This record gives sequence, structure tokens and C-alpha cells, in this order.
Amino acid sequence: MARIAILLGSDSDLPVLEKGTRIFDKFGVDYEVRILSAHRTPHAVTEYVGSFEETGVQVVIAGAGKAAHLPGVVAAHTILPVIGLPIRASLEGLDALLSIVQMPGGIPVATVGINAADNAALLAMEILALKDADMTAKLKAYRQDMEAAVLEKDRKVRNA
Amino acid sequence: MARIAILLGSDSDLPVLEKGTRIFDKFGVDYEVRILSAHRTPHAVTEYVGSFEETGVQVVIAGAGKAAHLPGVVAAHTILPVIGLPIRASLEGLDALLSIVQMPGGIPVATVGINAADNAALLAMEILALKDADMTAKLKAYRQDMEAAVLEKDRKVRNA
Amino acid sequence: MARIAILLGSDSDLPVLEKGTRIFDKFGVDYEVRILSAHRTPHAVTEYVGSFEETGVQVVIAGAGKAAHLPGVVAAHTILPVIGLPIRASLEGLDALLSIVQMPGGIPVATVGINAADNAALLAMEILALKDADMTAKLKAYRQDMEAAVLEKDRKVRNA
Amino acid sequence: MARIAILLGSDSDLPVLEKGTRIFDKFGVDYEVRILSAHRTPHAVTEYVGSFEETGVQVVIAGAGKAAHLPGVVAAHTILPVIGLPIRASLEGLDALLSIVQMPGGIPVATVGINAADNAALLAMEILALKDADMTAKLKAYRQDMEAAVLEKDRKVRNA
Amino acid sequence: MARIAILLGSDSDLPVLEKGTRIFDKFGVDYEVRILSAHRTPHAVTEYVGSFEETGVQVVIAGAGKAAHLPGVVAAHTILPVIGLPIRASLEGLDALLSIVQMPGGIPVATVGINAADNAALLAMEILALKDADMTAKLKAYRQDMEAAVLEKDRKVRNA
Amino acid sequence: MARIAILLGSDSDLPVLEKGTRIFDKFGVDYEVRILSAHRTPHAVTEYVGSFEETGVQVVIAGAGKAAHLPGVVAAHTILPVIGLPIRASLEGLDALLSIVQMPGGIPVATVGINAADNAALLAMEILALKDADMTAKLKAYRQDMEAAVLEKDRKVRNA
Amino acid sequence: MARIAILLGSDSDLPVLEKGTRIFDKFGVDYEVRILSAHRTPHAVTEYVGSFEETGVQVVIAGAGKAAHLPGVVAAHTILPVIGLPIRASLEGLDALLSIVQMPGGIPVATVGINAADNAALLAMEILALKDADMTAKLKAYRQDMEAAVLEKDRKVRNA
Amino acid sequence: MARIAILLGSDSDLPVLEKGTRIFDKFGVDYEVRILSAHRTPHAVTEYVGSFEETGVQVVIAGAGKAAHLPGVVAAHTILPVIGLPIRASLEGLDALLSIVQMPGGIPVATVGINAADNAALLAMEILALKDADMTAKLKAYRQDMEAAVLEKDRKVRNA
Repeated sequence: MARIAILLGSDSDLPVLEKGTRIFDKFGVDYEVRILSAHRTPHAVTEYVGSFEETGVQVVIAGAGKAAHLPGVVAAHTILPVIGLPIRASLEGLDALLSIVQMPGGIPVATVGINAADNAALLAMEILALKDADMTAKLKAYRQDMEAAVLEKDRKVRNA
Repeated sequence: MARIAILLGSDSDLPVLEKGTRIFDKFGVDYEVRILSAHRTPHAVTEYVGSFEETGVQVVIAGAGKAAHLPGVVAAHTILPVIGLPIRASLEGLDALLSIVQMPGGIPVATVGINAADNAALLAMEILALKDADMTAKLKAYRQDMEAAVLEKDRKVRNA
Repeated sequence: MARIAILLGSDSDLPVLEKGTRIFDKFGVDYEVRILSAHRTPHAVTEYVGSFEETGVQVVIAGAGKAAHLPGVVAAHTILPVIGLPIRASLEGLDALLSIVQMPGGIPVATVGINAADNAALLAMEILALKDADMTAKLKAYRQDMEAAVLEKDRKVRNA
Repeated sequence: MARIAILLGSDSDLPVLEKGTRIFDKFGVDYEVRILSAHRTPHAVTEYVGSFEETGVQVVIAGAGKAAHLPGVVAAHTILPVIGLPIRASLEGLDALLSIVQMPGGIPVATVGINAADNAALLAMEILALKDADMTAKLKAYRQDMEAAVLEKDRKVRNA
Repeated sequence: MARIAILLGSDSDLPVLEKGTRIFDKFGVDYEVRILSAHRTPHAVTEYVGSFEETGVQVVIAGAGKAAHLPGVVAAHTILPVIGLPIRASLEGLDALLSIVQMPGGIPVATVGINAADNAALLAMEILALKDADMTAKLKAYRQDMEAAVLEKDRKVRNA
Repeated sequence: MARIAILLGSDSDLPVLEKGTRIFDKFGVDYEVRILSAHRTPHAVTEYVGSFEETGVQVVIAGAGKAAHLPGVVAAHTILPVIGLPIRASLEGLDALLSIVQMPGGIPVATVGINAADNAALLAMEILALKDADMTAKLKAYRQDMEAAVLEKDRKVRNA
Repeated sequence: MARIAILLGSDSDLPVLEKGTRIFDKFGVDYEVRILSAHRTPHAVTEYVGSFEETGVQVVIAGAGKAAHLPGVVAAHTILPVIGLPIRASLEGLDALLSIVQMPGGIPVATVGINAADNAALLAMEILALKDADMTAKLKAYRQDMEAAVLEKDRKVRNA
Repeated sequence: MARIAILLGSDSDLPVLEKGTRIFDKFGVDYEVRILSAHRTPHAVTEYVGSFEETGVQVVIAGAGKAAHLPGVVAAHTILPVIGLPIRASLEGLDALLSIVQMPGGIPVATVGINAADNAALLAMEILALKDADMTAKLKAYRQDMEAAVLEKDRKVRNA
């Protein structure tokens, strides 16, 4: 079973997720994607979240748009870290952002930027890296690649 | 059992609710108030909403602030009309409003204005009035009282 | 005469409405659509709303964009439940949303999300279902279809 | 009969209006204040606006808060210039501003700033001044007073 | 000389203006359009506004986008009614709207909606109609045409 | 050395933090608070963050207001999970929220709600709980206490 | 004559300015404060700005609230660097910020944060420091004082 | 070495910059463009900014989108004037604007409008012009060209 569970409120959000799964795929990080809605399939969400303890899921990513309740609902049923991914579907994504990040006291959701699936993935890896030296190595490699890519672009612009 | 169930995410929201319960009290409309949180007591919410069919609740009012998921979570578990009451706790109440009104397709929440507990109450009465002539009479009386009160203020200003 | 009356401020809003009328059509729910403007045809609006008692309209859906006064104006002339549908025509629809939902005390409008004609239709059905077992059955079927559709998408994603 | 009619949606808005009526009082400009609500007393509004042709009203100022429909509703019933005064009652007055200024094509409302009753009064005088040399003189005097007051404050600061 | 002067901050705003000039053209209302910028040609603006008393201009329409100062700068140099037209060039037009409508006390700008050149034109005509029976007739005709157009669309929808 | 490092941009933010440290204190969770500014003491920030590997810090909480760069700057120098706490100092906290959550791709910040120091603390505990059964027990106890507190309030309201 | 000219749109803005003038006073930087309004005293503004070349003013700070045109109007009349200071008088200062910063192409205004008079002063000093070694020394001293103050607070918190 | 250093957070921002570099190119103003990220290459940023004293850079332009920290981070490491250029990448650029302009007290960033690279360039030239008569001449020429261009457009519109 994958240590990272990803829940999306709708399959129309799959293209946004790609920036994140590409990172997981590149570094061989195992994950599971599920399409489950806080409002349309509330029981399936509860059931799935309830299975995490048994299946060994350790970090959850939940993405949704508009009045995005999915991350908060997941967080209400687990004490695993839940990463909230606001998806732009209306109002430039501001409604999703506020619906996810402004959680009431007691039930945190670790929110990343609007449509920022890459950062959701990296945050999940940072959390897992606390007890996984291999993950630490992957994250350091990612940072180095990223730094090198910026410096390469810098070199090109300077020589242009 | 009351036909109108009111759920608040926190007892700190009770003062906001008063404008609504005062209308119910004035017209002798029966209601029940519960403090239940979509995130802190998710099971109690589901259980309570699940009891409505049996107890005869017909309209639900759910109020919450910030990332206000309570109305949407209630609506996900019932096909009764759910009235969402956004409560101002941060960002002038804009976060609560968007978290309640921007529901995904399929699960509507009948949203009223920020802190507008009076309108939540009146909307509940309007819905019940469709099969309750007595409620219709109360609403018509309320409208007439309201109109008279404005005209009385108008008279005072004109004579000032 | 239909039990559900739909007023749009402009015929340019008709495409937005389709998501709602498709639900009515699918379930054989009768409705009437009118193009009437709170500002351009105020008398026609008043007259039409005044006819509801006689013709047996029970729920009103009113949609408009920008400074969307139509739902509030309709609500001022009836104690029937009025569902407000904010239509995105400028400022991402935020102006329409606020113009509809922030009604003064005394005259509620049951507001749904920006361009959410499907939720307006379902809310109308939820209200009618309180005294119509057939409507209840249709709503339960809709919920089941919706749940099944999400679970089917979930199955596809899991097997992908 | 006064040439300037002022409508407020609620008597709680009277203190905001004072900055405007003080200007009228100072310059001996005649006006009439009425408390009438677009939603609570729609018939009285229509009737009052309908009387303008007969009574000789020439400019209308209409102020309201929240989902502020009053200026637009007045404008729908007259071709007199209607000045909209957004009053801050929620959301810093942004809801009232948008509800007044974003009128659909065909029915303009001449909107001034949030709580800017002074500017509403001066705009009314500017409009009347087009056919009233006395009003022109009053406006020029007001501008000169205002300029002198700023320059006097400037002098004090420079000598401080 | 035309009684209505129109100033635009940039010739790129001309397409937005068309909805307004089309109304003037239809009703044979005389106007003059100038491209003048509060910031790039401040002297030309002052000079032009200074000429109004002599040339008989009676109402000014000033349109601009972003930090739209043109309407306010024009208003600072005249006591003629100045109609501000916010043009959407960034931030959905919200910056232009606030830069025009939130004028400090003493210098009003009669603001219309974002890109609402038609309403700017109609407001100018309403102001001129106060001393021009012919203009009054044109406005009443416009309202009737508009009402008829809506009712015609209503008829089509009902028969569809 | 504490496993949780807390950085605040200013000591004026200490009162906001209290809701979080109270939770740590109650459950005997060790933490260290530092006042360090991304802009005023950039070197001290870099140096402090650089020491984490050696001192064994595992989760960082960084709080700041306005253009809140501190969480992002910390995240740029470590692959430890960084929790961003937006503090309301202007614009209702919206500027701080956006400055923290809208991080560019590659450097995530796990953002909690405006002034939500309690949720920042709980999120830190959730992350540590992944390899600390004692922390898991504390979090479960916190959830149970919280649930019991809501149910107790519910009981009081029902009996009132 | 001072090298730094400060213009405020109203003497009610003087308290906001203090954070800036205190820095100037502390470091013995000469400045001149004037109360002049873009709208109420347009001629005095033009005249004053026109005198800069002769009197040797090198940097201008202009502060205003609401539809804050003063910085832009000053910038339109000079090629000296103009620092815009948005002052919170309504809408949390967002209207002033947008009215100042969103200047059209060609006429820049160097905008600082809402009510950030200290930063306006420091920016003026940074500009002057380019040709004034003494000013450079003062700025470096300010930075060191500031850094020391944060570190001192940090020390206190650590020892608390 | 160029006196003007330009830092962009990403090479995808280069097209936005063009409006600014075109002005520099037209007037023969020397500048250097670098792609460096506050978060992905923090050390390279610090190093580059640290070199300014030696290489003679006098004004810095820093542009970034989203949670745009680059200008502030640069400003934290230098007392040279830093011009912040918010780039629209999400939320219409509002997040970038607030992340740049709302700097805490002590570290100013001279912010220009969203995507306003032309104004960033002109502001840099205005600052340099204080000790460079040639730059002054270029700026005056730019203003005259700009004024002439507007007047030419005005002429065309008047003759149309």
C-alpha cells in the first residue's frame, strides 16, 4: 500500500494534479489517487480515511475547487497530516483557498498554493523524509536540480 | 420534535443566532438548537442529520464561520432544504460566505447574508409555509409589521 | 401552471440556466422560464410575481448578473421562497453574488453559487419535496446517480 | 416642494447622511428626506418616485447598505438623475458599492463613494446648477472655501 | 459646440466607448470625443476643461483604466457634472472603479459601472433632460424601446 | 534541543502565538521560540535554519504579517517541513496569507489559517506523530477533549 | 531648501506621517511638509511641484487616502522620483494602494505599503544616498540599529 | 558594469520585462538581466546583491509573481533603491502586488504596477537622473514623445 493517499473531489481536477504526480513518478515515490467527493460520496470518504491506519497511509493530499470541503472533511477523520490543494474552478481559486486554509481551531489542513500540486507533492515528501533517509536524498536532489535549472537559465539570459 | 433544526459550529456563534430565534419565538415557531461541529464532532453531525427523517425535521439552518463546512456537510447527508448562515469570524465573513455558497454541483445550500440569522429564520418559515397556512399568516403579519415600522420611521423623519 | 417559476434578467443568461433545466427535464419537473428585468421591465416583474398566488407557483428561481437586483425585487413582492442565482457577467460574478446574498433583514433570498443553475434547480426540488413524495424519490435517485457516477470515475482512475 | 429628494433604506443610515444635509443647510438648498425601503416598502417607493413629475423633484439621492437595491429600483422608475450613495454596513461597504454601481445597461445610477454623503449633495447641486445661476454661485463659493481651508491648514503646518 | 464632452485616457479605450456613442448617434445627441491623459498631457486636460465655460459644454464623461485619475482631475477643475467611466484594463476593472468612485469629500464624480459606456451616455442625457424637453422625450423613447425589447425576448422564450 | 523551532518576524506577534504554545505546554511538547526577521536579520535567519540539521529540529513554524516572507525564506534553506502562520497586521491578514501560501513551485510552505497558531501547533504534532507513538496519543487525546468540549456545550444549549 | 518634499492630501494624514518624519528627525535629514490636495487645490500642487527644479527638491513623498490621486498628479508634473504613500481611510487602504500603484505606463510612482511612512522616508534616503556618502552612513546605521533591536528582542524571548 | 541590475524570479517573466528593456534600449541605458530565484537559488541572490557595491550597480529592479519575495529579499541585503515589479501569474497579480508592496517597516521596496515593466524602467532612470544630466535629458525627451503621441492620437480622433 502507498504511503501517500491523494483524494480529488472530481476527475476534472486530474490535469491539475499532474505537476505533483510527475514528481512522485520521477523519484519513484509510491502513491494512490482516488476520486471521492466530500459531498457526493461522504460515506466513501469516511470509509477510505478510516482505512489509513490499517493500510499504512502516512500523508494525505486532498484537492478540491469552489467551496472546497474535502481536505477539511478528511482532516476531521484522521490525525495524519492532511495537505490541502486549492483548485481554481471559480473566483480565480480564492474561494477554494479560503475554504481550505481557514479551518477552525483544532483541525489543521496544511494548505499549499492555488493549483500548486507540485508543492503538495514536495511537502508530502518533506514530511516522509523525517523518517526516511532515502526520501531526504530525493528531496536534496530535487532542490539541486531546481537550482541548477535556474542557474542554467540565468547563464543563457546573460549570454543572450 | 421541532420542524426546524439549527446547527451551529460553535457556541460562540449563539449571539449571532439571536436575531433569528427572536423571530421564531415571537411567532411561536418551534425549533431546536444544537452545537455540533463538522470537524470536531463529525460523527455526531452525521448521526443527528440521520435522525431527521424519523423525528420529522423539515428544514435545517446551519451556521458557521471561517472555512464554514457545516452547512455543506449537513447538506451532503440529507435532501431536506439546508439554509447556510455565514458567520463573520475573520476576513469580514467573506471566507464563510464563499465556503458556504460556492457548493459543487449536486448539493445545494440555500445561503443567506453574513450574520443574517433573521433572514435564515424567515426563509425557513417561507419554506414551511408552502404546506402550512398558519405559517403563511405569520409571514404576512411579519411583512406588514416590517412595512409599518418603516413607514412609521418615515413619518418621524418627515416631521422632524 | 408550473410550480416553479424561473426569471432571468436577460436572455443572454439562458445558457447558464441550462444546467438547471436539464435536471428538471430529466426528472419531468414542470417549470416556466421568463425573461424579465427588475430595471427595464419593473411593472412586468411585479405583475408576474403578483400572479403566483393565483397560478399556484410555489418556488421562484431568479438569476441575474452584475448589480443583480432581480431576486431581491421578486422576494420583496412575495413570501414564496425565492432562490437567487448569481450569474457571472463581470468581476468574476462577485458583484452578482453580493448583490443577491447580502439582502437586508426581513426579505431573504436563498442564494446558490455563481452560475450554479443545477443547484438552484435541486434546491427548488428539495423545497417541493417536503410535500411531494414523488419529488423526494427523484431527489434520492439524483443523489444515487451522482454517487454512482463519482464511484465509477474513482474505479476508472484506480484501474488506470 | 423640494427639488432634491433623498431616500434612505433605513433610519440607521441618517448619521451618514448628515455630511450631505449640512452642505444643503449651509447653502440654503431645499431637500426632502424619506425613509423608504426597496424591499420592505416597495409600493411606497414606487408611489413616491411616481410623484416626482408632479411635485417637481429634479434630482434624487438614494442611499443604502449591503445588497443596496434602492438606488437602482428608484432609477428603474424615473428618468431623473439618480445619485447612489453606498453605505458601509458590512464588508467595508464593498457590497453596497457593487450593488449600486454595477447597474445593467439602460438604467444608470450616478454612484459616489462609500458613505460620501457630502459628494452626493455636491453632485446634486452641480446638476441643478446647469439651469440655476444661484446654485452655480454656491458651488463656486464651496470650492473656494474648501481651497482656502486646505491652504490655511497648509500654512499652519508650514509654520509648525 | 457639443454640450457633452468625452475624455478618454487612451485611444485603446475607444472600443469600450462605442456602446455609449451609439446611443448618442441614434438619438442625434451631439458630443465631442478627446484623447487626453491626466498624467501624460496634464496641461492639455486643464486647458480643455478650462474652455468648457466658454464653449458651452454642460456634462463631461471621462473614462480611464487602472489608477484612473482622469475623471477626478477633470472634476477638480470644473463644477460641471463629471461622469466617471471605469475601464477594465487590469484587476477586472476594480482598480479603475475604486480610483474613480472613492473621491475625497468636496469633488464628486458620478461613477457608472465598469465598461458601462451606455450608462454613462444615458446619465448625461438624464442630466441634460432637466432643461431640455426634447432630451426627455428621447430618454422616454429609449426606456420604452428597451422595455419592448425585453418583453419581445420574453415572448420568444415563452413560445420556445 | 527542541524538535520544533518557531520563528516570528516580530515580538509583537507573540500574543498571536500563545494559542499554539499553550497546546505544546499542555501536552509537554518541547519547542523553541525565536524572534528573527527575514528582512531585518537575514543572516541570523539563514544561520539559525542552517543549524537545524545539527540540533535535530524536525519541524519549523514561521509566522509573519503583511508581506510575510519569513516562512518562504526559511523553506528556501531547508527541506524540513515549514509551517507558515499568516498574522493579521493589515488588510485583515489577506496580504500575509497570500504572501505565505502562494509560494512558487519547488518550495512548499504548509500554510494554516490567519492567526491560527493552534492549528500550526497541531500540524507540527501530526507530522512528528508519524514516528512518535507518544505524540499520536497526545493528538488523539486532544481530539477527544475537543469533541467532548463541543458535546458538553451542546448539552448545555439543549438544556437551556 | 530641503531636498525632500512631502505632500499630504489632508492634515488628518499627519499622524500617519510621523513614523517617517521621526526617522528624518533622528538622522538630521531635512524635509518640508505641505498640505495640498490634488482635487481641492490643484493649482497650488502644480505650482509647488513646478518650483522643485529651482528650489532643489530631489525626492518627493506624496501621501493620500481613498481615490488617492495626489502622488500620480505630482508625478505627472515632474521627472523627480515620486514616492507614493497609500493612507488607510476606507476599504482597509486597498483603494488608496490601487489608486497609487496602478499608474498607467509612462508616469511611475514608487509605491510603499499602506500607512508605511517609515518606508517612504527610508526609500527617499536610499535614493539620496546614491550621491551622498553621509546619507549612506545614516542608512547603514539604521539597518544596524534595526538588526540589533531584533536580536535584542530575540535574546529576551529566548531567556524568558 | 551596468548601473541597473534586473533580477527576475523566472525566465517565464522575460516577456513582461520587455516593455522596460525596450525603453532602456531606445535611450541607450545600460542594464544587466539575471534570472535568480529568492527560493530556488537563495545563495546566488545574496552573492549577486553582495557584489553591487564593488561593481557599481546603483538601482535594482526585481520582478516576481505569486508570493513574490524576490524584491524584498534583495532589499534586505542592500541599501540601494530596489524597485519591485509584481508579475501577474495568479489571482490577477494581486498576490504578487501585496507580497511586494506590503513590506515591514525598515526595508522599503519601491513598487510599481502589476506587469508595469515600463514604469519600473522609468523609475530607475528618474533615480539615476538625480546625478546624471544626460539621463535627465532622456527622461524629458521621453515625456515629450509621450505627450506628443497622445496629442497626435487626439488629433486623429477629433478628425475622424
